[in-house]
Amino acid sequence: MRQVTVAHAHCDLFCGVYDPAQAKIEAMSVMKAAEKYQASDDPVFRGRAVHIKEERAELVKHHLMVLWVDFFTEEHRKEFDNLDDLFWRAIHQAGDAKKSVDPADGQKLVDLIDEIADIFWQTEKAKTSGVYPPS
Amino acid sequence: MRQVTVAHAHCDLFCGVYDPAQAKIEAMSVMKAAEKYQASDDPVFRGRAVHIKEERAELVKHHLMVLWVDFFTEEHRKEFDNLDDLFWRAIHQAGDAKKSVDPADGQKLVDLIDEIADIFWQTEKAKTSGVYPPS
Amino acid sequence: MRQVTVAHAHCDLFCGVYDPAQAKIEAMSVMKAAEKYQASDDPVFRGRAVHIKEERAELVKHHLMVLWVDFFTEEHRKEFDNLDDLFWRAIHQAGDAKKSVDPADGQKLVDLIDEIADIFWQTEKAKTSGVYPPS
Amino acid sequence: MRQVTVAHAHCDLFCGVYDPAQAKIEAMSVMKAAEKYQASDDPVFRGRAVHIKEERAELVKHHLMVLWVDFFTEEHRKEFDNLDDLFWRAIHQAGDAKKSVDPADGQKLVDLIDEIADIFWQTEKAKTSGVYPPS
Amino acid sequence: MRQVTVAHAHCDLFCGVYDPAQAKIEAMSVMKAAEKYQASDDPVFRGRAVHIKEERAELVKHHLMVLWVDFFTEEHRKEFDNLDDLFWRAIHQAGDAKKSVDPADGQKLVDLIDEIADIFWQTEKAKTSGVYPPS
Amino acid sequence: MRQVTVAHAHCDLFCGVYDPAQAKIEAMSVMKAAEKYQASDDPVFRGRAVHIKEERAELVKHHLMVLWVDFFTEEHRKEFDNLDDLFWRAIHQAGDAKKSVDPADGQKLVDLIDEIADIFWQTEKAKTSGVYPPS
Repeated sequence: MRQVTVAHAHCDLFCGVYDPAQAKIEAMSVMKAAEKYQASDDPVFRGRAVHIKEERAELVKHHLMVLWVDFFTEEHRKEFDNLDDLFWRAIHQAGDAKKSVDPADGQKLVDLIDEIADIFWQTEKAKTSGVYPPS
Repeated sequence: MRQVTVAHAHCDLFCGVYDPAQAKIEAMSVMKAAEKYQASDDPVFRGRAVHIKEERAELVKHHLMVLWVDFFTEEHRKEFDNLDDLFWRAIHQAGDAKKSVDPADGQKLVDLIDEIADIFWQTEKAKTSGVYPPS
Repeated sequence: MRQVTVAHAHCDLFCGVYDPAQAKIEAMSVMKAAEKYQASDDPVFRGRAVHIKEERAELVKHHLMVLWVDFFTEEHRKEFDNLDDLFWRAIHQAGDAKKSVDPADGQKLVDLIDEIADIFWQTEKAKTSGVYPPS
Repeated sequence: MRQVTVAHAHCDLFCGVYDPAQAKIEAMSVMKAAEKYQASDDPVFRGRAVHIKEERAELVKHHLMVLWVDFFTEEHRKEFDNLDDLFWRAIHQAGDAKKSVDPADGQKLVDLIDEIADIFWQTEKAKTSGVYPPS
Repeated sequence: MRQVTVAHAHCDLFCGVYDPAQAKIEAMSVMKAAEKYQASDDPVFRGRAVHIKEERAELVKHHLMVLWVDFFTEEHRKEFDNLDDLFWRAIHQAGDAKKSVDPADGQKLVDLIDEIADIFWQTEKAKTSGVYPPS
Repeated sequence: MRQVTVAHAHCDLFCGVYDPAQAKIEAMSVMKAAEKYQASDDPVFRGRAVHIKEERAELVKHHLMVLWVDFFTEEHRKEFDNLDDLFWRAIHQAGDAKKSVDPADGQKLVDLIDEIADIFWQTEKAKTSGVYPPS
């Protein structure tokens, strides 16, 4: 079946634009929503903060999953042998930050994404796929 | 901050209903959509088959990510030490099945989900969280 | 217009993978979310339980609608003459379970889906479309 | 459990804003997308038309399901005894229009929604819930 | 690149079905959800009202953006020189109505959409694109 | 109505995390998807490229709308008097890039977002809201 081979070649081709910036921006929203929850005593505002945090944390999870399986390759996983564990902890932490209203949980999530970004920018592939390299 | 501690306790509480059946049903749709693509020569139908396959494969990815970080715990990951690798390969395969119109790629995805389901049903937690145990 | 005839033939073709398991898994989440709401007195947790229940109930509605019009045919509707009424009550009950925090409303929803599943598995079509037959 | 009773009372309360206009506008998009498909021979444009038609038809299905179980009551279903059948055929037709590129399938969908709208505007409830009464 | 020119021609072609009715129906839901919030003292119901309001307001924003850039043209923007400002204020007001539980914020949103609808129905293009002209 | 006033104050508070990086990353995907479409002659791959481009362009539209009405204020619109026009052209261009398979349309979209980012980073508000300042 000819298409299949072609499609696999496209697989690499399609690794077009990836950047941990997407996960990080949403994670910072998660953290700030928790801060604002803590700073307010209006139940409507607090309800909205929790809800927005929920959505943002879900987006973090999605962006991280995409990085893990679409950007990072078998080879990267051998080179950076804590990669799977780091992603499990980061995506799991996004779940914790979803459940919690403690800004520290959001901060932990941001820190884990920074660790991922650090590895991301060490790869050759990031040079053509990434958009916001560390300055 | 009292809520936070409570929320972490809730974390476990919320591990309510999980079942690899969700990922498997979508993965079977992916495989069947590829079969139907191959069996047809109508461009409209083929376009729709590709598109439906795309959506279903994306749902597989989501359901697998949820199982990986929300159902399976640190302890499970120690007990089943190929778990992270199995999930990376399954979610990555969902991406391959998305790109390909070869039913074999869908079948490979179904097989990987069956491997995950096999581990899932070995856990104690599955007894209270799962809905469709192997008969 | 040639495509149209072809498309109608595809209609049957596309009745690929259906299973009431999808609706049931979400309905059990609805019921468990109500149980957890009742067991907690943390407003953040309760807010999240209500919100998750909302999303799950909406998914139940969607899965049921798909079964009703895409899996079941005119012929099935003649054979099982309470089918329309059963689906109206089940989808309506999903709405009730959305509004309520009483686990009994979730249980009623699960029961109605079990009635639908019972009819589903009596059809010939279920043998090739279904994935989780009653054991 | 006090909330539950209250919630059921709210059920009625929440029957706030409903209008078959929502389904009709999307159904007209479905029909026009098929017309444009037929009028073009550019494969990119045709692919997009099919895809947009798909999305719009899905929205029609959703809007119709909401009208069926949320707007119309048990009493309405007794008064208008073809209501369930009419909705089954309309939602099923949305599926047919999704599969087909024949504008006639879109037109049939619009006609069925007009039949539903006709019943809708005969109800007392429509006077407070509807927004675009027939002029 | 031939397709591009064609695609631009299609641009006009695709301006098929537009109607401010879509934004208005959602905006009326926003307003009614705020009214129901005020009329209730059940925290579950109030939480749901805020959440539904949130979703509806987001849909208003989306429908308004589509009208602004897809229905209205450069020429319309010259002819109705307050158009950009009117849309900024309406979409911004949708955000305000999202944050507020005061029905007056929903009403203000409805009024701004009525102003937009008034301009919409003055255009020639509305005659072929609109579905619910003012009676 | 006390909540309302509070909610308006929260309005400002909620202007937490904004960054044109989100729109730019998606716009670069739009451009690269068009490039890959042009470089391939596999109809399945081309169909997928068009479809992915569609989704990414829709996300660009959403991110830009959020920047326009949620980040930028009345005051900013007075200070940068081409702001409304710039946003109309950028969101409209996202629609053009959706319809076209010419990478130049994606590039034009990226350029317009760069113009917006340039204004964004001139504001005081960006200092606390932005995440990826120009290096």
